[in-house]
Amino acid sequence: MKRVAQVIRVRPEHVEAYEEVHSAVWPSVLERLRQQHVTNYSIYRHGDLLFSYFEYTGEDYEADMAAIAADPESQRWWKVTDPMQDRVPEAADGQWWHPIPEVFHLP
Amino acid sequence: MKRVAQVIRVRPEHVEAYEEVHSAVWPSVLERLRQQHVTNYSIYRHGDLLFSYFEYTGEDYEADMAAIAADPESQRWWKVTDPMQDRVPEAADGQWWHPIPEVFHLP
Repeated sequence: MKRVAQVIRVRPEHVEAYEEVHSAVWPSVLERLRQQHVTNYSIYRHGDLLFSYFEYTGEDYEADMAAIAADPESQRWWKVTDPMQDRVPEAADGQWWHPIPEVFHLP
Repeated sequence: MKRVAQVIRVRPEHVEAYEEVHSAVWPSVLERLRQQHVTNYSIYRHGDLLFSYFEYTGEDYEADMAAIAADPESQRWWKVTDPMQDRVPEAADGQWWHPIPEVFHLP
Protein backbone atom coordinates (compact mmCIF):
# COMPACT_ATOMS: atom_id res chain seq x y z
CA MET A 1 0.00 0.00 0.00
CA LYS A 2 1.26 3.44 -1.01
CA ARG A 3 0.39 6.55 0.99
CA VAL A 4 0.19 9.80 -0.97
CA ALA A 5 0.12 13.32 0.48
CA GLN A 6 -0.21 16.39 -1.70
CA VAL A 7 -0.89 20.12 -1.40
CA ILE A 8 -2.57 22.72 -3.57
CA ARG A 9 -3.96 26.19 -2.88
CA VAL A 10 -7.63 27.08 -2.80
CA ARG A 11 -8.29 30.57 -4.12
CA PRO A 12 -9.49 32.52 -1.06
CA GLU A 13 -12.62 33.78 -2.84
CA HIS A 14 -13.61 30.17 -3.60
CA VAL A 15 -13.16 28.56 -0.17
CA GLU A 16 -16.86 28.41 0.54
CA ALA A 17 -17.77 27.01 -2.89
CA TYR A 18 -14.91 24.51 -2.70
CA GLU A 19 -16.14 23.17 0.62
CA GLU A 20 -19.71 23.08 -0.61
CA VAL A 21 -18.98 21.00 -3.70
CA HIS A 22 -16.73 18.70 -1.68
CA SER A 23 -19.52 17.98 0.76
CA ALA A 24 -21.30 16.24 -2.12
CA VAL A 25 -18.76 14.98 -4.64
CA TRP A 26 -20.48 13.31 -7.59
CA PRO A 27 -20.93 9.54 -7.15
CA SER A 28 -19.38 8.95 -10.59
CA VAL A 29 -16.19 10.67 -9.45
CA LEU A 30 -16.03 8.71 -6.20
CA GLU A 31 -16.71 5.47 -8.05
CA ARG A 32 -13.85 6.14 -10.46
CA LEU A 33 -11.44 6.78 -7.58
CA ARG A 34 -12.48 3.50 -5.97
CA GLN A 35 -12.13 1.62 -9.27
CA GLN A 36 -8.56 2.87 -9.57
CA HIS A 37 -7.72 1.71 -6.02
CA VAL A 38 -7.77 5.07 -4.25
CA THR A 39 -9.05 4.66 -0.69
CA ASN A 40 -9.15 6.45 2.68
CA TYR A 41 -8.92 9.76 0.82
CA SER A 42 -9.22 12.94 2.88
CA ILE A 43 -8.75 16.62 2.09
CA TYR A 44 -8.05 19.11 4.88
CA ARG A 45 -7.75 22.89 4.73
CA HIS A 46 -5.29 25.15 6.54
CA GLY A 47 -6.09 28.72 5.51
CA ASP A 48 -5.78 28.68 1.72
CA LEU A 49 -3.66 25.54 1.68
CA LEU A 50 -5.36 22.24 0.94
CA PHE A 51 -3.75 19.05 2.11
CA SER A 52 -4.81 15.71 0.68
CA TYR A 53 -4.01 12.23 1.97
CA PHE A 54 -4.98 8.97 0.34
CA GLU A 55 -3.98 5.35 0.22
CA TYR A 56 -3.36 3.55 -3.04
CA THR A 57 -3.99 -0.18 -2.96
CA GLY A 58 -3.43 -1.09 -6.62
CA GLU A 59 -0.43 -2.45 -8.48
CA ASP A 60 0.27 0.26 -11.06
CA TYR A 61 -0.06 3.76 -9.66
CA GLU A 62 0.83 5.62 -12.86
CA ALA A 63 -1.68 3.61 -14.91
CA ASP A 64 -4.45 4.12 -12.38
CA MET A 65 -3.81 7.87 -12.17
CA ALA A 66 -3.85 7.99 -15.99
CA ALA A 67 -7.18 6.14 -16.02
CA ILE A 68 -8.67 8.74 -13.69
CA ALA A 69 -7.25 11.55 -15.83
CA ALA A 70 -8.81 9.97 -18.94
CA ASP A 71 -12.24 9.54 -17.35
CA PRO A 72 -14.79 11.98 -18.80
CA GLU A 73 -16.70 12.30 -15.52
CA SER A 74 -13.54 13.13 -13.58
CA GLN A 75 -12.63 15.66 -16.27
CA ARG A 76 -16.06 17.21 -15.95
CA TRP A 77 -15.57 17.40 -12.17
CA TRP A 78 -12.21 19.11 -12.56
CA LYS A 79 -13.84 21.73 -14.79
CA VAL A 80 -15.78 22.69 -11.66
CA THR A 81 -12.94 22.48 -9.14
CA ASP A 82 -9.83 23.54 -11.09
CA PRO A 83 -10.81 27.22 -11.28
CA MET A 84 -11.13 27.23 -7.48
CA GLN A 85 -7.57 26.03 -7.00
CA ASP A 86 -4.04 27.13 -7.83
CA ARG A 87 -0.68 25.36 -7.76
CA VAL A 88 1.67 26.00 -4.87
CA PRO A 89 4.86 27.84 -5.89
CA GLU A 90 6.87 24.66 -5.20
CA ALA A 91 4.93 22.64 -7.81
CA ALA A 92 7.09 21.34 -10.65
CA ASP A 93 6.13 21.86 -14.30
CA GLY A 94 3.05 19.81 -15.09
CA GLN A 95 2.12 19.30 -11.44
CA TRP A 96 -1.25 20.41 -10.18
CA TRP A 97 -1.49 18.82 -6.74
CA HIS A 98 2.10 18.85 -5.43
CA PRO A 99 3.32 15.69 -3.64
CA ILE A 100 5.06 16.27 -0.30
CA PRO A 101 7.47 13.95 1.50
CA GLU A 102 6.67 11.72 4.46
CA VAL A 103 8.76 12.44 7.55
CA PHE A 104 7.30 9.80 9.87
CA HIS A 105 4.91 6.87 9.82
CA LEU A 106 3.52 4.69 12.56
CA PRO A 107 1.39 1.84 11.13
CA MET B 1 -12.87 5.88 14.26
CA LYS B 2 -11.82 9.54 14.42
CA ARG B 3 -9.44 11.06 11.88
CA VAL B 4 -7.23 13.87 13.13
CA ALA B 5 -5.21 16.30 11.00
CA GLN B 6 -2.99 18.96 12.50
CA VAL B 7 -0.27 21.41 11.47
CA ILE B 8 2.77 22.92 13.16
CA ARG B 9 5.88 24.67 11.87
CA VAL B 10 9.35 23.20 11.84
CA ARG B 11 12.04 25.81 12.46
CA PRO B 12 13.94 25.99 9.16
CA GLU B 13 17.32 25.51 10.82
CA HIS B 14 16.06 22.27 12.38
CA VAL B 15 14.50 20.56 9.34
CA GLU B 16 17.36 18.13 8.93
CA ALA B 17 17.50 17.22 12.63
CA TYR B 18 13.71 16.89 12.77
CA GLU B 19 13.69 14.43 9.89
CA GLU B 20 16.60 12.51 11.35
CA VAL B 21 15.00 11.97 14.77
CA HIS B 22 11.69 11.07 13.11
CA SER B 23 13.35 8.37 11.06
CA ALA B 24 13.97 6.56 14.37
CA VAL B 25 11.35 7.58 16.91
CA TRP B 26 11.96 5.87 20.25
CA PRO B 27 10.08 2.57 20.63
CA SER B 28 8.74 3.74 24.01
CA VAL B 29 7.09 6.72 22.32
CA LEU B 30 5.57 4.61 19.55
CA GLU B 31 4.35 2.05 22.08
CA ARG B 32 2.61 4.76 24.11
CA LEU B 33 0.85 6.07 20.99
CA ARG B 34 -0.35 2.55 20.18
CA GLN B 35 -1.51 1.99 23.75
CA GLN B 36 -3.64 5.12 23.55
CA HIS B 37 -5.24 3.96 20.28
CA VAL B 38 -3.35 6.20 17.86
CA THR B 39 -2.81 4.39 14.56
CA ASN B 40 -1.91 5.03 10.91
CA TYR B 41 -0.02 8.13 12.02
CA SER B 42 1.95 10.02 9.37
CA ILE B 43 3.77 13.34 9.34
CA TYR B 44 4.48 15.12 6.05
CA ARG B 45 6.47 18.28 5.38
CA HIS B 46 5.69 21.12 2.98
CA GLY B 47 8.50 23.65 3.29
CA ASP B 48 8.50 24.58 6.97
CA LEU B 49 4.94 23.39 7.52
CA LEU B 50 4.42 19.96 9.04
CA PHE B 51 1.16 18.16 8.46
CA SER B 52 0.15 15.22 10.63
CA TYR B 53 -2.62 12.72 10.05
CA PHE B 54 -3.64 9.93 12.37
CA GLU B 55 -6.57 7.70 13.18
CA TYR B 56 -7.87 7.33 16.71
CA THR B 57 -9.57 4.04 17.43
CA GLY B 58 -10.31 4.41 21.16
CA GLU B 59 -13.41 5.47 23.05
CA ASP B 60 -12.19 8.55 24.97
CA TYR B 61 -9.97 10.81 22.89
CA GLU B 62 -9.37 13.45 25.56
CA ALA B 63 -8.40 10.84 28.16
CA ASP B 64 -6.03 9.08 25.77
CA MET B 65 -4.37 12.35 24.75
CA ALA B 66 -3.99 13.22 28.44
CA ALA B 67 -2.39 9.82 29.09
CA ILE B 68 0.18 10.50 26.37
CA ALA B 69 0.83 13.97 27.77
CA ALA B 70 1.39 12.47 31.24
CA ASP B 71 3.79 9.78 30.00
CA PRO B 72 7.40 10.52 31.10
CA GLU B 73 8.89 8.96 27.96
CA SER B 74 6.68 11.06 25.68
CA GLN B 75 7.62 14.14 27.72
CA ARG B 76 11.29 13.26 27.32
CA TRP B 77 10.74 12.91 23.55
CA TRP B 78 9.05 16.31 23.34
CA LYS B 79 12.06 17.87 25.09
CA VAL B 80 13.97 16.81 21.97
CA THR B 81 11.39 17.79 19.37
CA ASP B 82 9.63 20.85 20.82
CA PRO B 83 12.59 23.22 20.30
CA MET B 84 12.60 22.23 16.61
CA GLN B 85 8.97 23.29 16.17
CA ASP B 86 6.85 26.40 16.50
CA ARG B 87 3.08 26.96 16.58
CA VAL B 88 1.36 28.24 13.46
CA PRO B 89 -0.05 31.76 13.87
CA GLU B 90 -3.59 30.31 13.72
CA ALA B 91 -3.05 28.14 16.82
CA ALA B 92 -5.36 28.97 19.70
CA ASP B 93 -4.05 29.56 23.23
CA GLY B 94 -2.69 26.34 24.63
CA GLN B 95 -2.50 24.61 21.24
CA TRP B 96 0.79 23.25 20.01
CA TRP B 97 -0.18 21.16 17.01
CA HIS B 98 -3.15 23.01 15.47
CA PRO B 99 -6.12 20.90 14.29
CA ILE B 100 -7.40 21.67 10.79
CA PRO B 101 -10.84 20.88 9.36
CA GLU B 102 -11.70 18.06 6.99
CA VAL B 103 -13.17 19.21 3.67
CA PHE B 104 -13.70 15.80 2.07
CA HIS B 105 -13.51 12.12 2.87
CA LEU B 106 -13.85 9.01 0.75
CA PRO B 107 -13.71 5.85 2.90
